[in-house]
Amino acid sequence: VTAPRFPTRLPQLAPSPFTFGSFRGVRAAGVAAGIKASGRPDIALLAFDRPSSVAAVFTRNAFAAAPVIVSRSHVRATGGLARAIVVNSGNANACTGEDGLRDARSMCEQVASGLGCSAEEVLVASTGVIGHKLPIDRVRKGIERALSELAPGDAAGRRFLDAIQTTDAFAKEASAAEEIEGRTVRAAGFCKGAGMIHPDMATLLAFVGVELPLSPTQLAGAVGSIAAQSFNSVHVDTHPSTNDTLFLFAGGDGEAPASAAWAGPATRVARRLAWLIARDGEGATKVTTITVRGATSHDAARKIATLVASSALVRTALFGNDPNWGRFVSQVGNSPELRHPERVTCRLQGETVFREGEPVAFDRGALSSKMATEDVSLELDLSDGSGEATVMTSDLGYRYVEVNAEYTT
Amino acid sequence: VTAPRFPTRLPQLAPSPFTFGSFRGVRAAGVAAGIKASGRPDIALLAFDRPSSVAAVFTRNAFAAAPVIVSRSHVRATGGLARAIVVNSGNANACTGEDGLRDARSMCEQVASGLGCSAEEVLVASTGVIGHKLPIDRVRKGIERALSELAPGDAAGRRFLDAIQTTDAFAKEASAAEEIEGRTVRAAGFCKGAGMIHPDMATLLAFVGVELPLSPTQLAGAVGSIAAQSFNSVHVDTHPSTNDTLFLFAGGDGEAPASAAWAGPATRVARRLAWLIARDGEGATKVTTITVRGATSHDAARKIATLVASSALVRTALFGNDPNWGRFVSQVGNSPELRHPERVTCRLQGETVFREGEPVAFDRGALSSKMATEDVSLELDLSDGSGEATVMTSDLGYRYVEVNAEYTT
Repeated sequence: VTAPRFPTRLPQLAPSPFTFGSFRGVRAAGVAAGIKASGRPDIALLAFDRPSSVAAVFTRNAFAAAPVIVSRSHVRATGGLARAIVVNSGNANACTGEDGLRDARSMCEQVASGLGCSAEEVLVASTGVIGHKLPIDRVRKGIERALSELAPGDAAGRRFLDAIQTTDAFAKEASAAEEIEGRTVRAAGFCKGAGMIHPDMATLLAFVGVELPLSPTQLAGAVGSIAAQSFNSVHVDTHPSTNDTLFLFAGGDGEAPASAAWAGPATRVARRLAWLIARDGEGATKVTTITVRGATSHDAARKIATLVASSALVRTALFGNDPNWGRFVSQVGNSPELRHPERVTCRLQGETVFREGEPVAFDRGALSSKMATEDVSLELDLSDGSGEATVMTSDLGYRYVEVNAEYTT
Repeated sequence: VTAPRFPTRLPQLAPSPFTFGSFRGVRAAGVAAGIKASGRPDIALLAFDRPSSVAAVFTRNAFAAAPVIVSRSHVRATGGLARAIVVNSGNANACTGEDGLRDARSMCEQVASGLGCSAEEVLVASTGVIGHKLPIDRVRKGIERALSELAPGDAAGRRFLDAIQTTDAFAKEASAAEEIEGRTVRAAGFCKGAGMIHPDMATLLAFVGVELPLSPTQLAGAVGSIAAQSFNSVHVDTHPSTNDTLFLFAGGDGEAPASAAWAGPATRVARRLAWLIARDGEGATKVTTITVRGATSHDAARKIATLVASSALVRTALFGNDPNWGRFVSQVGNSPELRHPERVTCRLQGETVFREGEPVAFDRGALSSKMATEDVSLELDLSDGSGEATVMTSDLGYRYVEVNAEYTT
């Protein structure tokens, strides 16, 4: 590995005030088992003292990895109750056939035996290189150590976070606390992922906990909407991986809340994690939030926002701080959802650059300077209904090409 | 403008043996009218001595430029007969409202008055910066000169070609000749375009002539299929422009052919021009032909090929000569059209790297060397039907980012 030609500009991040490692009944561990050649931590374990409610969203890729297949069946079998989640990084256990399934199951069995529960109460996730068999002996030794090192607290939580990383340029954590029905509800999460890098397919793995005794039904009812507003609204590239997984779990004492307000802090945590994913989009220098308003429906707004977010021309203009409304507006014009081009208005960083189908004079240099920031806002108003949707996208610069084209084995 | 950091590697191109400038009854011109700041030629004119059959395919972008709107109505009004095509480069006349329409119409009227025909017999196309009014006085003087310089022959044809360029790294021409029904049928074409570059929206403009007295109906019946097999199978980026136009015209004496075999050489010309478009894909170093076979239908095959071609991860791997089948295959897995992942086979440069859902051992270094060429073949066999489709894509490298992010006004 040579030094990068285009170094990543990292965001300035303050650590979260807490992690789910501090939730009552939660213990975590992260150890180095030698799966990664670098010697960095690569086995992460999360354990719940009592069966905890869990809901999940898995990749829809037809080449779903073995851990996805196993976890999906375990969530179904238990109705959404788990005692542990075991994760390895450095190897995706994807495209590995029957052997891969056997290895993923054996990871669950080993954790179950250590914790005294059933294998179906253990969920599993993997991330890293695809098409290679797991070095199962190393994995077993790592799990053994992780079991013995399980501990409560934020330090243990962050050891878990360390051990799920692959090509991430920075660690991704988020937390939120909110007064709901007279008590403080806390939510916290970790995630990893930054698109896919050879030879790793840097899967998105996300873990979001809510410190409340929620039922599996409550979680299952909310997880789709939480994912839609966060990870499923991120476009680093148009290429979901074989291993993408979001686990949403509940951990906490007392009474379950009456309302669904608990989903608020959980959604904020997930959205922040999604922003961090876009920010770490393989050389990204900024995150652009694309909001489409006034579409005929939410679905139409979402399709248009996604079309704009997925354009390499749009993403290179954002990298270049180029207030090039022609690229943004003409991509809207490529959507069959657009019915009235003469009504389209485009705003960039709050400034109107195109109004009702016609260009507006503006100071190009000043607006370009306003785009030279981590957070860019692009708004497209169609004046054709009340449908609205938001999508986050990373920009596309030299570093994206470098990490995706040059770092081959 | 500073020197590029990543110079374009140009293909080695032999000039075509002939252009449509040599077709009987065809005259061409290209002049510099000062629309481009560079002083390069920017008014191109093609004239037919007698009304000539023309068929066209226009952009489906909702923000269709004024010349597209005018030409579409002229083709409709005449039933596909034209005496001339006038083109300006350096200004797209797009997003220019009523003034833009008036200017496009006045270009046709001026040519009509010069040639002694109706304005509806003149077609018009523009390419260049969008959202700026045409400098109509310069355009008028340019057209006046072009009318006076109309001449037969290949040299005049290539002056036309010169004047339609914007950000093209090289001129694009193609020709084909074939024995059909006992005579030699010639087809020839020019095109320009290389994605969209700020501040220019480098539209695709293509002009393909067949040296036969074909009827408007014959041309109209073939133009869709010719476009589908050529320009509509190219993915430089996923961003069609406001001005994209293909004109297919007939110029020649004698009898019209009985069969549709004439579409053969025309299609070969269009495919070669499309290859050149992909090759000039803003810093592209190669063209990859993605063939999907064994899909449930042609449409399904086309959707999958397009999904693979539009992935930035796939395109950076191609730039890096990286035989990274994980990226190719997992993108197939993202298509709802894929029903049997376990049947998928992937071949790169003819070498099988993934067979029936499982990785195959291969020499990564040797295959990477075989990818370091202008023409790469990626084949995906789904073994699930007889649907087949082919798409051409450019790779995505540093130069793409440079031209799209750095060259701002």
